[in-house]
Amino acid sequence: MDRRQVEQEIYRSIERVLHEMGIDVIADDASIPVSVSARHVHLSPDDVNALFGDGYSLTYFRDISQPGQYACQEKVTLKGPKGKIENVRILGPARGQTQVEVSKTDARTLGVDPPVRRSGVLKDSEAITIEAANGRVIHLNEGLIIADRHIHMTPEDARRFAVKDGEKVAVAISGEKPGVLGQVTIRVKETYKLDMHIDTDDGNAFLIQGAGKGKIVKESW
Amino acid sequence: MDRRQVEQEIYRSIERVLHEMGIDVIADDASIPVSVSARHVHLSPDDVNALFGDGYSLTYFRDISQPGQYACQEKVTLKGPKGKIENVRILGPARGQTQVEVSKTDARTLGVDPPVRRSGVLKDSEAITIEAANGRVIHLNEGLIIADRHIHMTPEDARRFAVKDGEKVAVAISGEKPGVLGQVTIRVKETYKLDMHIDTDDGNAFLIQGAGKGKIVKESW
Repeated sequence: MDRRQVEQEIYRSIERVLHEMGIDVIADDASIPVSVSARHVHLSPDDVNALFGDGYSLTYFRDISQPGQYACQEKVTLKGPKGKIENVRILGPARGQTQVEVSKTDARTLGVDPPVRRSGVLKDSEAITIEAANGRVIHLNEGLIIADRHIHMTPEDARRFAVKDGEKVAVAISGEKPGVLGQVTIRVKETYKLDMHIDTDDGNAFLIQGAGKGKIVKESW
Repeated sequence: MDRRQVEQEIYRSIERVLHEMGIDVIADDASIPVSVSARHVHLSPDDVNALFGDGYSLTYFRDISQPGQYACQEKVTLKGPKGKIENVRILGPARGQTQVEVSKTDARTLGVDPPVRRSGVLKDSEAITIEAANGRVIHLNEGLIIADRHIHMTPEDARRFAVKDGEKVAVAISGEKPGVLGQVTIRVKETYKLDMHIDTDDGNAFLIQGAGKGKIVKESW
């Protein structure tokens, strides 16, 4: 046996002993659903008016994973210094400040450098131009981000996983290209439904199509 | 202290004890360079002839990370049932069988479903059409893959990291979107230069632009 094998043997023995003491290093019930969020736009009421005309109401298309949130019929084009991306879905309802969420791959297509941010934390984030199908255009000085990896959950879920709102955890993903996603923000609210959201880069890197499963683990690296 | 904190305390104590015994759970010298491989094509001599004309020689453009391998001036278009991708670089020298390496994001653009494979393992991999700028076209019944995550290294590196050719390891990546990439194949050859290769999905998911750093760790999830 080489050193690596010795280490693994020692670890397995420790895990067995801990398990018999009732302590599981990775909780058995730490499995969570994972959804891939494609690029999308949240508009402020003022920007809805600017893009679609005064008093316009966004058109409901279908529900999305978090209660009260929905995809709209309306789509827009994102324009950056290097390129554009068409058919980007608007999510409703309208919010205080317009926020555009893209992946790093999208950012490279557009030629922009958005920061990784928690939703709503937009100060000094990246600029972007949004164009509606009718030709109207708005330019944001800030509002473009790469959304952080995060898990929506209820206070009851948070107690079960022994985590707190704002805490960072890591989540293991199995499959042909498996691994661990780090710096995942816990977001707790009574109205949330348990679901981890990752961007399309994380989804494609780990071969998750639409929806998958993950497991909350300790950050051990 | 909750259970999670107790577990972490126990683990830290164990790591300290192991460290005093001369056993480091994560070796201090496990840091490796990481390169992002964009989509590319390796052509067989027959397919060079079919695409560019009999007796054609690919034109050297620049060296790439592994000694003896180089990027060529020539680029081609990949065509799938759903879309095409232009300006895909050919790598030289010519090989026994034509192999096309793309990311999952590329595969979705093309509308194809390539398997994750070690380079050269092409049996029953995905079909793809390749078009040269001159309009000549070849269709492969197999040859399109998503390259597995892998680390090129010399036998001396392999001894240092206590790994073997063909072994799977995990590699931790730090940064704003950090984590661990699993199922990374070790590839050992005297002529190799130490370098981990990941595709653009892994690169973009972990915010590695061109080149980065990783650390070989135990798969602990």
